[in-house]
Amino acid sequence: MEYETPQFFRVMRYASQADRDVVDMVSGSPDWEPPESLREGLVEYAQGDTERFQYPPSVGLTGLREEIADRRAVDREQVVVTNGAGEANHLAMSAGFEQFPGSEMLLVDPTYPYYAGRASLLGADTRYVPAGRGGVPDTATVRDCTREETSVIVVNTPNNPLGATYDRETMAALVDIAADYDALLVSDEVYDHFDYSGRFSSALSFDSPHRVVTNSFSKSLAITGWRVGYAVFPDREGPRGDLFDHARTRHMLTNVTSSRPAQAAVLHALRETGPDYYENVRDRLRGRIDTFTDALDTAGATYTDPDGGFYVMARFPGFPGTFENVERLVDEAGVAGMPGEAFGDSRADWIRFALVSPRVETAADRLAEFFG
Amino acid sequence: MEYETPQFFRVMRYASQADRDVVDMVSGSPDWEPPESLREGLVEYAQGDTERFQYPPSVGLTGLREEIADRRAVDREQVVVTNGAGEANHLAMSAGFEQFPGSEMLLVDPTYPYYAGRASLLGADTRYVPAGRGGVPDTATVRDCTREETSVIVVNTPNNPLGATYDRETMAALVDIAADYDALLVSDEVYDHFDYSGRFSSALSFDSPHRVVTNSFSKSLAITGWRVGYAVFPDREGPRGDLFDHARTRHMLTNVTSSRPAQAAVLHALRETGPDYYENVRDRLRGRIDTFTDALDTAGATYTDPDGGFYVMARFPGFPGTFENVERLVDEAGVAGMPGEAFGDSRADWIRFALVSPRVETAADRLAEFFG
Repeated sequence: MEYETPQFFRVMRYASQADRDVVDMVSGSPDWEPPESLREGLVEYAQGDTERFQYPPSVGLTGLREEIADRRAVDREQVVVTNGAGEANHLAMSAGFEQFPGSEMLLVDPTYPYYAGRASLLGADTRYVPAGRGGVPDTATVRDCTREETSVIVVNTPNNPLGATYDRETMAALVDIAADYDALLVSDEVYDHFDYSGRFSSALSFDSPHRVVTNSFSKSLAITGWRVGYAVFPDREGPRGDLFDHARTRHMLTNVTSSRPAQAAVLHALRETGPDYYENVRDRLRGRIDTFTDALDTAGATYTDPDGGFYVMARFPGFPGTFENVERLVDEAGVAGMPGEAFGDSRADWIRFALVSPRVETAADRLAEFFG
Repeated sequence: MEYETPQFFRVMRYASQADRDVVDMVSGSPDWEPPESLREGLVEYAQGDTERFQYPPSVGLTGLREEIADRRAVDREQVVVTNGAGEANHLAMSAGFEQFPGSEMLLVDPTYPYYAGRASLLGADTRYVPAGRGGVPDTATVRDCTREETSVIVVNTPNNPLGATYDRETMAALVDIAADYDALLVSDEVYDHFDYSGRFSSALSFDSPHRVVTNSFSKSLAITGWRVGYAVFPDREGPRGDLFDHARTRHMLTNVTSSRPAQAAVLHALRETGPDYYENVRDRLRGRIDTFTDALDTAGATYTDPDGGFYVMARFPGFPGTFENVERLVDEAGVAGMPGEAFGDSRADWIRFALVSPRVETAADRLAEFFG
């Protein structure tokens, strides 16, 4: 595999080297505060017994697995705590390719770019099914695109980059398709706390040996750098208990375990943080979405109005979302977004903006002026 | 790959369920304090700016890479910060199998058990070369055992379980063998701060595109659960710059990056901790080794007198190191060690004791009494 500098990194570098002030809306790192109890949890850990500085169980601190299991209404034994959703995703995909027939992954276009990279690392090919209107793939089309070679289907809800939230009917159909084709549905739900539609439906709502859910606290607790994620595998006693076993072995042999200070602080924060924290963040983001999409109206752009997550994709008339145009926007408007082509051919005309800056209003004004 | 409960875990569980008091000398988790500055570093991080809670560079915090590079006299660009030595080792091996001809690993018997598991995960076979007298493999024998199919040679110095420290001549020969067979020497040096012989020689002393060094702060800072390790790859501009690229891609696609709180605290501790800290720990361990080996003399045992690390292997007359005998030692002597067979056939008669308990003296007395 060739190493490629991720495109978001190229854009961020370009933006940071610009001669003018630029609002960075490139990467998805939250700019808001984590809950205060998270800091407390880390301080408490730092001052605690040194026995707690040594190896936790490979699959994660027992208390943290329990807390996750309670929240997701699953058995603790189904949960592996991972080094962020990245590793959770890697373990789930790898278990799918290993334990199900075929060596092909089905992905929705446009998509978060790392999924295909992970499949390639594992020696698998990727096929794409188009996201339909509103960003949710038409499940009949997904079924048409699924075939014998398909071993893993990866979806992301709420979705990056489209902001779509998959409803219960869609998730049910996706789980059924995976079952019908003896494949594994991997549902990446890292934006589950950012659903504005009330329609979010986890793949865990469906008791099936054909689905794994991956998640993390990177976005919900505003700590992308802490690397605490998890995967929930099918029932250990059921027909696909082997998926958990595969992931556990791979996790042990590659990472041994995930970093304990971060696990301990996240556990403390989960116990101490009420629904208000998440609601406040959602309110703030909804406000930003309104501000930003109003400006896009003024700019004459077409855009996605997200049901979830914190990304808006926009298409400006006569201004396709190429790398060159994104650079032009940095230099001439002072706003940095991500070229749509980074997410797949289908959105090459678009630009993605991450609403994780306190200066969304400034960015909105600048875009309205530049295009207006 | 089948999941197997690691043997050390089985023994620890057995010991913890015993009816009597047992001194746990099974796993290698330090029982001493980390430097005070490590705790300080974590508290400072917890109270710091939330921007620092977000993604660090995938290959690690720049300051930490610089600190490591300075200490190892290499270029920062050769360093990847990993989720402990486990991941460093996995990345190094995987780069070796990918970039060098052959798909076979050469390992010294006895050995730390995870290496072979990692090779198997990567689809490679393992051959063994016997550790010679004193625990250092005879380099002529290593050369004889190396062949065209060999792509990776893994050594561990100072050594677990034998306590041998490989000297400069041995390391030079190993690097040469790797070069002659177009293979990669992976030198796992996690016990480098625990050399009592003064003869430790890192593979980094030899400028070669055929060696990678893996290491971590798990043992040197007494934080096995924090997962901060690193790998040093050959010169990026040299003929094997591709090894770094391979590792960086795999690291990015599997872990994205390593946990930042732990990285930040380790960086602070490295800057603030003087040589006294390490010297004091070595002194304490040397004292424990003396106490323990004196008791083994009384018990009539044959044993390894470690030049480095904190393990002692012992063979008791008429009492081979089977799992059953290890259980008997738990029940009848109140001392828990690791069965030698866990480290390879060559030491099936032996038992390994980790001197990471403040009760080494009690354990020594008990063994002397049981066997004396």
